[in-house]
Amino acid sequence: MIIVARKDITADQIDYIRERVEGAGLRTHISIGESRTIIGCIGDEARLANLPLLSIPGVQSVHPVMRPYKLAARGFSADPTTTVRVGDHSFGGPRCLVAAGPCSVEGSPMMFETGRAVAESGASLLRGGAFKPRTSPYSFDGLKEEGLRILSSVRSETGLPVVTEVLDPRDAELVASYADMLQIGARNMQNFSLLREVGQLQRPVLLKRGMSATLKDLLLAAEYVMSRGNMQVVLCERGIRTFGAETRNTFDLAAIPWLKMETHLPVIADPSHAGGRRDLVAPLSYAALAAGADGLIVEVHPDPETAMSDGDQSLTFAEFADLMDSLTVFAEAAGRSM
Amino acid sequence: MIIVARKDITADQIDYIRERVEGAGLRTHISIGESRTIIGCIGDEARLANLPLLSIPGVQSVHPVMRPYKLAARGFSADPTTTVRVGDHSFGGPRCLVAAGPCSVEGSPMMFETGRAVAESGASLLRGGAFKPRTSPYSFDGLKEEGLRILSSVRSETGLPVVTEVLDPRDAELVASYADMLQIGARNMQNFSLLREVGQLQRPVLLKRGMSATLKDLLLAAEYVMSRGNMQVVLCERGIRTFGAETRNTFDLAAIPWLKMETHLPVIADPSHAGGRRDLVAPLSYAALAAGADGLIVEVHPDPETAMSDGDQSLTFAEFADLMDSLTVFAEAAGRSM
Amino acid sequence: MIIVARKDITADQIDYIRERVEGAGLRTHISIGESRTIIGCIGDEARLANLPLLSIPGVQSVHPVMRPYKLAARGFSADPTTTVRVGDHSFGGPRCLVAAGPCSVEGSPMMFETGRAVAESGASLLRGGAFKPRTSPYSFDGLKEEGLRILSSVRSETGLPVVTEVLDPRDAELVASYADMLQIGARNMQNFSLLREVGQLQRPVLLKRGMSATLKDLLLAAEYVMSRGNMQVVLCERGIRTFGAETRNTFDLAAIPWLKMETHLPVIADPSHAGGRRDLVAPLSYAALAAGADGLIVEVHPDPETAMSDGDQSLTFAEFADLMDSLTVFAEAAGRSM
Amino acid sequence: MIIVARKDITADQIDYIRERVEGAGLRTHISIGESRTIIGCIGDEARLANLPLLSIPGVQSVHPVMRPYKLAARGFSADPTTTVRVGDHSFGGPRCLVAAGPCSVEGSPMMFETGRAVAESGASLLRGGAFKPRTSPYSFDGLKEEGLRILSSVRSETGLPVVTEVLDPRDAELVASYADMLQIGARNMQNFSLLREVGQLQRPVLLKRGMSATLKDLLLAAEYVMSRGNMQVVLCERGIRTFGAETRNTFDLAAIPWLKMETHLPVIADPSHAGGRRDLVAPLSYAALAAGADGLIVEVHPDPETAMSDGDQSLTFAEFADLMDSLTVFAEAAGRSM
Repeated sequence: MIIVARKDITADQIDYIRERVEGAGLRTHISIGESRTIIGCIGDEARLANLPLLSIPGVQSVHPVMRPYKLAARGFSADPTTTVRVGDHSFGGPRCLVAAGPCSVEGSPMMFETGRAVAESGASLLRGGAFKPRTSPYSFDGLKEEGLRILSSVRSETGLPVVTEVLDPRDAELVASYADMLQIGARNMQNFSLLREVGQLQRPVLLKRGMSATLKDLLLAAEYVMSRGNMQVVLCERGIRTFGAETRNTFDLAAIPWLKMETHLPVIADPSHAGGRRDLVAPLSYAALAAGADGLIVEVHPDPETAMSDGDQSLTFAEFADLMDSLTVFAEAAGRSM
Repeated sequence: MIIVARKDITADQIDYIRERVEGAGLRTHISIGESRTIIGCIGDEARLANLPLLSIPGVQSVHPVMRPYKLAARGFSADPTTTVRVGDHSFGGPRCLVAAGPCSVEGSPMMFETGRAVAESGASLLRGGAFKPRTSPYSFDGLKEEGLRILSSVRSETGLPVVTEVLDPRDAELVASYADMLQIGARNMQNFSLLREVGQLQRPVLLKRGMSATLKDLLLAAEYVMSRGNMQVVLCERGIRTFGAETRNTFDLAAIPWLKMETHLPVIADPSHAGGRRDLVAPLSYAALAAGADGLIVEVHPDPETAMSDGDQSLTFAEFADLMDSLTVFAEAAGRSM
Repeated sequence: MIIVARKDITADQIDYIRERVEGAGLRTHISIGESRTIIGCIGDEARLANLPLLSIPGVQSVHPVMRPYKLAARGFSADPTTTVRVGDHSFGGPRCLVAAGPCSVEGSPMMFETGRAVAESGASLLRGGAFKPRTSPYSFDGLKEEGLRILSSVRSETGLPVVTEVLDPRDAELVASYADMLQIGARNMQNFSLLREVGQLQRPVLLKRGMSATLKDLLLAAEYVMSRGNMQVVLCERGIRTFGAETRNTFDLAAIPWLKMETHLPVIADPSHAGGRRDLVAPLSYAALAAGADGLIVEVHPDPETAMSDGDQSLTFAEFADLMDSLTVFAEAAGRSM
Repeated sequence: MIIVARKDITADQIDYIRERVEGAGLRTHISIGESRTIIGCIGDEARLANLPLLSIPGVQSVHPVMRPYKLAARGFSADPTTTVRVGDHSFGGPRCLVAAGPCSVEGSPMMFETGRAVAESGASLLRGGAFKPRTSPYSFDGLKEEGLRILSSVRSETGLPVVTEVLDPRDAELVASYADMLQIGARNMQNFSLLREVGQLQRPVLLKRGMSATLKDLLLAAEYVMSRGNMQVVLCERGIRTFGAETRNTFDLAAIPWLKMETHLPVIADPSHAGGRRDLVAPLSYAALAAGADGLIVEVHPDPETAMSDGDQSLTFAEFADLMDSLTVFAEAAGRSM
């Protein structure tokens, strides 16, 4: 950490800072310039996290220089990308994986129908929400355990592993007993109780970026899960909230290559939520693979016009089959396969 | 809800929309213009929430015209402001209330010291976090039940009712057994499990606006709590996340008068988190009261330079006493008292 | 335009609105529901632009239903994409075009060197700023007319048409006398004097999206140019300003397919400004082509470490050659060529 | 400037950086830690502005420590606030000044009527746009010189000095020949040609913050004007563009006290554009004065329902008179007068 002080800082204030920093087990290096004094802090910066340096008179600015995450940082892993295995497939390997299915599990027949269709088109995982976070308390919030049972039956028939969202730490074990991969949704990216809970389970986690989360926040959320012992985390860019009014969210495409440089965890994209419109799903998917994404999660519904949620952004089976066909050239252009 | 269709929509598509809308129990009114067809839907708009109208070919845009919240809407209450009683005080009455205390409960002596000091300066509630949400898994996350016990003892001595954060639905009853008011933090504003849980308790709730929550989102979060039977909700503007780099968050001052027009719930402000800097607390507090806020929540610490969290934005006892003194003229200018 | 009124609107107020709307030459259609009254306005909505409907008591919300731009709208052109010819090349045709060169024209030798290198690697246009907008008044702001002369000489040798920025309406003719395409930078997207000025010249315009411009704002800026008679406008997504801290701007990838659906104008991307980092240029370029962009504008410098501006995001000649090589597969995957 | 390098930076790279930095006339100080090397640069940081340090392999981050503006910085002036005199009044003195008038000068009678009314209610300046920036090329864009003549006649009768916007550097002298204060609008805050032009005139400048401008950007825009010799700049917070949907812009209240600490220039607020709604003007005005603003600029129209622009946010004469009456207590609470 580097502390920049104004010219008018007193020797006593510098001494005070030095004592506090050294008291936390770091060394200091003081450099006095014409108009600024710089106090370099050498050692484990995390120990200074609670030190309110800015409120010391004379301190102008404070610059952290260490990454606040360790397990999620690129350097933690010998391989550039950790592979996260789900069923017979691995996120982060040569193949780009696609999870597909409806926003909500609405019932058994539609899930079987969807499972068969997306499996046939080449999806690697089945998605579907049994517990649904809804902005309004009056909206449909999922079939809960019945939904989980349906997902599990569809897996038995199709062989597709299941990824589904967990909303409440009390449900984590229940969801893990049915699902192959636990999704943490955007609204829960900083639900630390939930992150700790899934960190104690041995189930891969799909961690979606929060609507106003920086990429460092996202990696710190992953660190929560990993610091509890569960290293199987896949990150997901799904759009952020900005002034942009024409799409549901703003798809932050550069997050994909930035994360690929900064972390060893696999990174996928959710073109359905990012764009919020069926006709944007294909171009956003192409772009995500082109930029190096390890996969996609896509909403598919037997009849989007009757979907109980997110119908506007769900693909029909035929549209999904077309998407899967057209993805191959982009995956190959990026040196991957489908 | 109003559905605007392009000129090229077919009669069949219009019929289909009419059937779907009428099937949901609403009436329709179709108006065919030169370049647009307008389908007005008359009745309970909430029933159309799951209808993916945008994905119907020919539909150009969809305009909800009803408020999605009911219990939180201004019209729900006969009085312009509902009063929410905590201890001997009421949010939403003629007096502006101030909750004060440290970010975290760090131990017993500092809490007693703080409780006495803020009580003497005129605070109405004691704040202090026993369960702390922290961006990094390596930061101090609170004393938990021990912290609650300390808060409770300070209340016994000072008479100050206690407001403290609840993070996990599993802790809601525990926190409610010690605290007079339950705080839902910004990161949990859309933690729907938690909202439902506090909705079932008979404890006033301090609901902070999420970092990327619109004001409609905030009112829908309040609606979650209220729809479970707990009508004692106080809203809190604490700054949103924008491109602004000079302050910790962007204090959305206009949220205060907008909410006062739109809802009957009391509205307070958190100048400490909004500005993130000790020297911004006073001007932001003055502005909040001037704009009609029903109170404030302010961070105060016996020695901010040793605070375990948020030291940079915490006031000393002397600074808090000065703030309380200087608030009176602003409260009175706004037709209120302190 | 649709006007939604509250139940308590009076008959007089409805009459007043009807008179005002009909006075502007539109017809009205009034539909009275249980809790809302809807006033549909049929005809040329633009005539209502100055009518302050929201300030009429009883009016709850106002919903424009027409696009505010006409010449820039998709429907204005018989072809899905208008081609904009610059030199021997056309934006919007089967080939994706790349404009390349330094941020600033720093002198003659470096421009000749760059021009030859980028031509050899397959660039279609030479970029370089002679007039530079700089956030600080103390930064280098370009060689001005001398820079234009250098650009023109490099064109003579390499055959590359030149695109360069115009900042001041007083310089528009001068710049047009040297350049093949006039760039309007992000900071000037709503400099309406400048837009009108380039609208009167017969030179293709490269219009960059403003940092806080919605896509509708961008199309209205294009409409300014087009409404003065210059229909040769190419749009450019170059990143917007959001809370995102890890990249220079937030690259709004979805803007590309959204614009391709909404307008007939060609759309390109600027991966250099969007990411602000050399190592992000390639993945952002791949993604832009995958999403349907008609081309790119890329910063290239003989020695980025000595560049007078934007060195961090400029490619070396070797890196640019590699980029051009690797783009081909992505262009082809998107059904285009390089 | 502080350069933080990764452990793997080579000695050659460090030497290279040292040479470049010292070549620019600064001294360096190198501190090698266990996991980071820190290169402190001592001297005039502005000379490093063009050095692309981030693109040097091994460099992890770069931290400027000097303010990029000098003339606008607080320390440049002996007084905490510079006073800017317009007519008989001064921005930055003990009185809070209010500029009032319509968005657009629509004609002579309405301007005379407005001028008399706002003068009588206590306004210190008359505002009114003769050159109007409009998002659409089809909207009314002002009466131009005729508008300026009208403003000037109203000044003759009422004694109110006139503030009006200049859009085009070619019009700066013309506008200055009629107006007492030149307004630079939000869209032109980074129109550097225009800033330089008004920097050469001896007329006070009202500089509005751009919709996506940080406060540092705003101060750098002021620096443009001041560096040309015109030190009479008044800053104006008028709302920024964020995800917030309920108000026209997001009023960044904390900008006022932050600017008052950081610069000696007077700071005013524009509650009309910030909120975009008539009923928000009063509470935003109260808050601005409470937070320390030196004045306000408010839209007032004889008949807002017939205004040619911004009618929804314009006050009637009666509403403006009420506002002026009610402002006094807030100004006095803040230690000022009206």
